[in-house]
Amino acid sequence: MPTVIPEDSVGLIKPQTLHFDAPLELACGRTLDAYDLVIETYGELNAERNNAVLICHALSGHHHAAGYHSMEDRKPGWWDSAIGPGKAIDTNRFFVVSLNNLGGCHGSTGPRSTNPATGKPFGPDFPIVTVIDWVNSQVRLADRLGIQQWAAIVGGSLGGMQAMQWAISFPERLRHCVIIAAAPRLSAQNIAFNEVARQAISKDPQFHQGHYYEEEVVPKTGLMLARMIGHITYLSEDGMREKFGRELRDGKINFDFTPQFEIESYLQYQGEQFSTAFDANTYLLMTKALDYFDPAADYQNDLTQALSHASCRFFVASFTTDWRFSPERSREIVDALVDAGKDVCYTEIDAAHGHDAFLIPIPRYMEVFQSYMSRVANDFSRHEEARHAG
Amino acid sequence: MPTVIPEDSVGLIKPQTLHFDAPLELACGRTLDAYDLVIETYGELNAERNNAVLICHALSGHHHAAGYHSMEDRKPGWWDSAIGPGKAIDTNRFFVVSLNNLGGCHGSTGPRSTNPATGKPFGPDFPIVTVIDWVNSQVRLADRLGIQQWAAIVGGSLGGMQAMQWAISFPERLRHCVIIAAAPRLSAQNIAFNEVARQAISKDPQFHQGHYYEEEVVPKTGLMLARMIGHITYLSEDGMREKFGRELRDGKINFDFTPQFEIESYLQYQGEQFSTAFDANTYLLMTKALDYFDPAADYQNDLTQALSHASCRFFVASFTTDWRFSPERSREIVDALVDAGKDVCYTEIDAAHGHDAFLIPIPRYMEVFQSYMSRVANDFSRHEEARHAG
Repeated sequence: MPTVIPEDSVGLIKPQTLHFDAPLELACGRTLDAYDLVIETYGELNAERNNAVLICHALSGHHHAAGYHSMEDRKPGWWDSAIGPGKAIDTNRFFVVSLNNLGGCHGSTGPRSTNPATGKPFGPDFPIVTVIDWVNSQVRLADRLGIQQWAAIVGGSLGGMQAMQWAISFPERLRHCVIIAAAPRLSAQNIAFNEVARQAISKDPQFHQGHYYEEEVVPKTGLMLARMIGHITYLSEDGMREKFGRELRDGKINFDFTPQFEIESYLQYQGEQFSTAFDANTYLLMTKALDYFDPAADYQNDLTQALSHASCRFFVASFTTDWRFSPERSREIVDALVDAGKDVCYTEIDAAHGHDAFLIPIPRYMEVFQSYMSRVANDFSRHEEARHAG
Repeated sequence: MPTVIPEDSVGLIKPQTLHFDAPLELACGRTLDAYDLVIETYGELNAERNNAVLICHALSGHHHAAGYHSMEDRKPGWWDSAIGPGKAIDTNRFFVVSLNNLGGCHGSTGPRSTNPATGKPFGPDFPIVTVIDWVNSQVRLADRLGIQQWAAIVGGSLGGMQAMQWAISFPERLRHCVIIAAAPRLSAQNIAFNEVARQAISKDPQFHQGHYYEEEVVPKTGLMLARMIGHITYLSEDGMREKFGRELRDGKINFDFTPQFEIESYLQYQGEQFSTAFDANTYLLMTKALDYFDPAADYQNDLTQALSHASCRFFVASFTTDWRFSPERSREIVDALVDAGKDVCYTEIDAAHGHDAFLIPIPRYMEVFQSYMSRVANDFSRHEEARHAG
């Protein structure tokens, strides 16, 4: 069924693949000799090249953040609610760049790619990538696109961690850092959930120690379980209660093990969809990048000291019922920024949707986000006016 | 290594198996023609037979609640901290009865037992049992022991639900109902976690649709994952942070998928221990009993109306960091009891241990618990004195 593309959409979008030849040294000590990054862009880069916004994706995200790939697409990109003409990230003003990170499974070099050393897919031999590795690869992407300084780097969840890392490691290369529903590092509970997901995948007999491509199978059960666990942590208990409560599929208890409560069917469906769409090795890599992220570790575990290197302005947002990365975790970031004397705007959005709220166009959230992004745009608009006047 | 049995222990204990011949009709519509219940008792039943306390166990519990089975035991029963001479449930005053529920895997009739219809283990053909079925079987146990009225029925978590069901269904058969760290019914999130655990078990290739006994294997991976998930919900985020934080096993990141954070090793160890000790079919049954428990359902979803049938006194306890069954859920029970005009004593214990707190001898918890149980004992002591005087 052909979609009628809404007026506030960025429209039909074609991803591009950029090849990078210079070896990239990774935090783990290994080197990627060459790699591809798949990106999408929305809006136009201005003559001053100062209106670019980088979107960093979360655990299961990718480059397709807005618009449609074809008229047959049933859904737009994952953050279409926030990116488009007149939206919070206004493509009439910004040139937006969205990429699939290294290790991903949507076209950038990752475990499914051919390992030049063997001629076979990397599989489990793909190096462990970290947030700093992604940021390093994104710096090269900026160089390639001729973007010396991003107007803003924006991310939710694991994406917000990348934005934070940019501010610390490459302070001169961004003017604004937007960190939504993130945390300065994972808690023991966060790591615990990730580890159960990894065990579910790696103990699936179809995983074949990560060499399942050659076997032409996928560890479906493991991925399904991983996604079900993840999904529980993305929703709030209240949101789940409102949406599913104890509703029974057939209105009655069956006294068997088929899904009876609506929440059971919902989770199974989500898990099954995901298990055929996402790559297991990528899931393992992404969860490890989350576990390892800890920018304060290099600064005697002092986040204030880590963030003191930043020179951009910050926007931090959290959601009241998010228990994966609760508002308290965002306030740790805000407190460190304030202690470090940085310019930070913080908002805590009342929302029942839990961690997932960052993807949902909650009116108050979109208003505050748009208002901040207008300030970002006004910065370079003023520069432009000054230049035109001068 | 032989244990020196502590003075406040009930000492060496021998479980007993009681056989029941009268068919038991179950909520699912099926009937168990005959069954065994394994029990332990501590203390002495008094002449008036009015000092008996029933202990109901939780998801992975059993009849061995206190004392030791042999001098070689490394650990006592699961609630040894609360049951013994001079302890909260004082075996100098009470005759304590603890059982393994139907469907269990510690000696009572369950999936591992022989199905008389086939001569093989029941396996997945064991009927789905519910809290009301357990209570019905416990009523017969009381009859067998000659206990017309329990001084108290005591349970934590799923055990507390059994105590609550007794108060509603058999009001004349208990004088006190002690409900610790429970909930009036499971939330969508509680059900969701249970369903992931069930999927992990039932999708394990070693599960063989529940007929793994014949195959002489066990679904180890599924049980391990189920336990890991469960364990995360038993601990609080704060407790996990205090106990494990982000401590690394080798003090450094390895950039591979072996367990590196202490919390990863801990969960894997717990999961592996459990996977060889517990029966998978029993785990499925116990989680279903939890999901199905909803005493208000028969009363237009009105818990007050359900509890209005009770005639005993109530003690309800919750723990501040319990997020499996939070204090809010206990307060729902207390509110309904108050609305129904019942005598209820409620305590919310400050504890970092999450849901597991109910098993831990936290001083304030044990003091309040002991104080309530003294009141229970004073009731029948007064009766005794009156009788002796009369």
